[in-house]
Amino acid sequence: MALKLYNTLTRQKELFTPMAPAKVGMYVCGPTVYGHSHIGHAKSYVSFDVIVRYLRSRGYAVTYIQNITDVGHLLGDANEGEDRLLKQGRLEQKHPMEIAEAYTRSYFEDMDALGILRPDIAPRATGHIIEQIELIKKLVAGGFAYEADGSVYFEVAKDTAYGKLSGRKTEDAETGTRVETKSEKRHPNDFALWKRAEPEHIMRWPSPWSVGFPGWHIECSAMSMKYLGESFDIHGGGMDNQFPHHECEIAQSESATGKPFVKYWIHNNLVTVGGRKMSKSLGNTMMLKETFRKYSPVVVRFFILQSHYRSTLDFTDEALEGASKGLEKLHQTVRSVREAMKLEPGRAAAAEALLDLDGARTIFLEAMDDDFNAPQAIAVLFDIARDVNAGLALKGFSAERLAEIDRFFLETGGQVLGLIPEQLEEKGGADVGELMTLMLDVRQEVRANKLWKLSDAIRDGLAKLGFTVEDAKDGSTSWRRSR
Amino acid sequence: MALKLYNTLTRQKELFTPMAPAKVGMYVCGPTVYGHSHIGHAKSYVSFDVIVRYLRSRGYAVTYIQNITDVGHLLGDANEGEDRLLKQGRLEQKHPMEIAEAYTRSYFEDMDALGILRPDIAPRATGHIIEQIELIKKLVAGGFAYEADGSVYFEVAKDTAYGKLSGRKTEDAETGTRVETKSEKRHPNDFALWKRAEPEHIMRWPSPWSVGFPGWHIECSAMSMKYLGESFDIHGGGMDNQFPHHECEIAQSESATGKPFVKYWIHNNLVTVGGRKMSKSLGNTMMLKETFRKYSPVVVRFFILQSHYRSTLDFTDEALEGASKGLEKLHQTVRSVREAMKLEPGRAAAAEALLDLDGARTIFLEAMDDDFNAPQAIAVLFDIARDVNAGLALKGFSAERLAEIDRFFLETGGQVLGLIPEQLEEKGGADVGELMTLMLDVRQEVRANKLWKLSDAIRDGLAKLGFTVEDAKDGSTSWRRSR
Repeated sequence: MALKLYNTLTRQKELFTPMAPAKVGMYVCGPTVYGHSHIGHAKSYVSFDVIVRYLRSRGYAVTYIQNITDVGHLLGDANEGEDRLLKQGRLEQKHPMEIAEAYTRSYFEDMDALGILRPDIAPRATGHIIEQIELIKKLVAGGFAYEADGSVYFEVAKDTAYGKLSGRKTEDAETGTRVETKSEKRHPNDFALWKRAEPEHIMRWPSPWSVGFPGWHIECSAMSMKYLGESFDIHGGGMDNQFPHHECEIAQSESATGKPFVKYWIHNNLVTVGGRKMSKSLGNTMMLKETFRKYSPVVVRFFILQSHYRSTLDFTDEALEGASKGLEKLHQTVRSVREAMKLEPGRAAAAEALLDLDGARTIFLEAMDDDFNAPQAIAVLFDIARDVNAGLALKGFSAERLAEIDRFFLETGGQVLGLIPEQLEEKGGADVGELMTLMLDVRQEVRANKLWKLSDAIRDGLAKLGFTVEDAKDGSTSWRRSR
Repeated sequence: MALKLYNTLTRQKELFTPMAPAKVGMYVCGPTVYGHSHIGHAKSYVSFDVIVRYLRSRGYAVTYIQNITDVGHLLGDANEGEDRLLKQGRLEQKHPMEIAEAYTRSYFEDMDALGILRPDIAPRATGHIIEQIELIKKLVAGGFAYEADGSVYFEVAKDTAYGKLSGRKTEDAETGTRVETKSEKRHPNDFALWKRAEPEHIMRWPSPWSVGFPGWHIECSAMSMKYLGESFDIHGGGMDNQFPHHECEIAQSESATGKPFVKYWIHNNLVTVGGRKMSKSLGNTMMLKETFRKYSPVVVRFFILQSHYRSTLDFTDEALEGASKGLEKLHQTVRSVREAMKLEPGRAAAAEALLDLDGARTIFLEAMDDDFNAPQAIAVLFDIARDVNAGLALKGFSAERLAEIDRFFLETGGQVLGLIPEQLEEKGGADVGELMTLMLDVRQEVRANKLWKLSDAIRDGLAKLGFTVEDAKDGSTSWRRSR
């Protein structure tokens, strides 16, 4: 079996052959930390998490880098306008680094909740200003970039390959927004590598050109090459980053090194909400912390993986509720397997014929090998769950077989897809309060039947477990914890 | 009432008057992230957490900065020897930044578990190389530092005030370890601001003097002044950092700016284990993750706060077990108050005389005002808990009074000391399994008494709660979750 993945650069599925055998260097564009994460972040990082997990399960040693953009890049596609962290800082009356600190934490909280493995390094843009300056120096020295009034721009005309990823060279027209800045550029397509800081710009560093700050694109080139080398295997990100961000990354990196930057470009598709694009102006942005109040994070993860990473994902409450029920069915099967493992061994023969674990594993791997087709891989789990349930009803599995089934679910749905935990919460079970209410009702009935000894035994049994039962004069009974 | 704190700089308790009214800038030396945190880290960061919490409860707007040392400083007091992150990276076969990433996460996990509020900014040393270089440039230009073979040293003889914090100027003799490096210095007391990188040194940055890395002390000067200004209110750290680290910080900062660096220096004392200094060579380092397996983090926090931050803390299992019992008593009182709030109001008069909440609050604040005397403040909580328990036994508190008591505990033991959570776990209560065992025993007895209707009612009641009861042919009964 061979892993194929869709490479945006070539617009086709390609056989995956990493540059060094058994080692994979992978970089994914991380968040700009000026607000809480939304469902779009979840889609992107769950997608790449499954890719990392699958590559590791196939034996690759993956070094996974995901940056934190804590230099607040300018609003607007044209890289003009206001700095996002500065703006948020002003709103919250905080230093931009406090904003970055708070939302970096918030980001990882949400990603941890979604079962996303942490990147091996999460380099901060502010932590790599020197590396960015060094790269810009190289581009200026090589004639690919020019200075203008303390800012430095990449000259797109010098890079004949520009546009090879996205097929685009020009940003959508946004004329007249900040004419004086644009006029610094030799050509409107040129993009900023370094910007001279206006007096009100708090985040600023000395450089050979001005006290300023790096442009939007240079950090990803500098940090990916620092930790993965000048050429590496996989670069990922959201589809909306293809142009201009990734196109600019390629231009900067390949002009500076003369080497191919990235072998495989992987882009995840976006999330819509009720069929419409998610946007601040529509007010339909699904923040994760809010979503988690209604749906458990693993349900959100399951919902995301039910569609392919290159498909759009439409968020509706109905879809989420469906996902919740679907995942619970899968979990219930695993729970039943684990409970059956505690009982006496089954009679083996009857149900065995139903169940083809090896075949299922093969189909699972084929699905994942086909451009990480998680929805198809999930379908395999449901198929096998149906057979397992039928077999369980027949009490048909031996202890060894049950362990094998459990291991199958853990390896496929657990380690690779991150949907089946080693310990399943005992979901849907009653809590202590409900049981105590029932227990006291029973005791009332016992007393009504004048079984005083049993009534006392219940009281004493509960006392041993740490509950004090109090019988009021009016015949009612209450309980409280005694320790 | 006025807050007094012990200032290491003046060796006396001083009235606390921050530079700007109602605002406090505070910097505490954070961890070097090359390993998991131990009980010594817990003592330091719990101590400063209570200081921050108390200052905030007194109405100060505290900006709390705590650095992450991810440039792995050299082993050995003399700032010579091997880089800690490089060494750990070699042991784990990882890039030093992977080591930093993993152990930064581990650090915050442990601190979060201890209820330590996150610093407003946790600046990384690697994220502030430029700021460090700029500060060193200033020191060289001012004649306080000199270059030698690509390294830069601070010339202690140029700073007449050197030694004013610790009373020391010279490190303990450690002769002959790396003679060739030492000979670069004009005087053995001089300390490194910048070190030229040996070829095997992975973490390296360009500078005006060499491709190298900053010395151990300069990051704290650069980062504290960046976020808090050239003069700020409070600098904290472990007592072992007084010399050379904090002495060097003062020398660098005040030489560079000509202004007083820090108004109040606060140092926490250290942890011993069974009366002996904790050290790797003795093999008695109490790692937090290990400790938390045996004692809950809030018990560790309580244990730490039972002694004053300027006292040594001796870690023994007996002491921890004692702390566990002590805290549970306090929690039980709060739990009882909250349970009483759910019942009908009490008869007020009887117990009121026992309880002087306002008086207790005053003594609590006096204790905290006296150099953050947490052990005395805790004693107040236990005194009031005794009175509360006595009052509860008399059913003596009105609903309003109970709410007031709860609020008192939350404000003092909760917000300030971080020992009383808003939601207390129902500790010591039975779990569902134990209750189910009792329930099925009761049902057996009910059946033995031929109360078939009640037996069925129990089965149906449990089914509603999500438990399936199965009666085997041999008369035994088992249960499993049905959802």
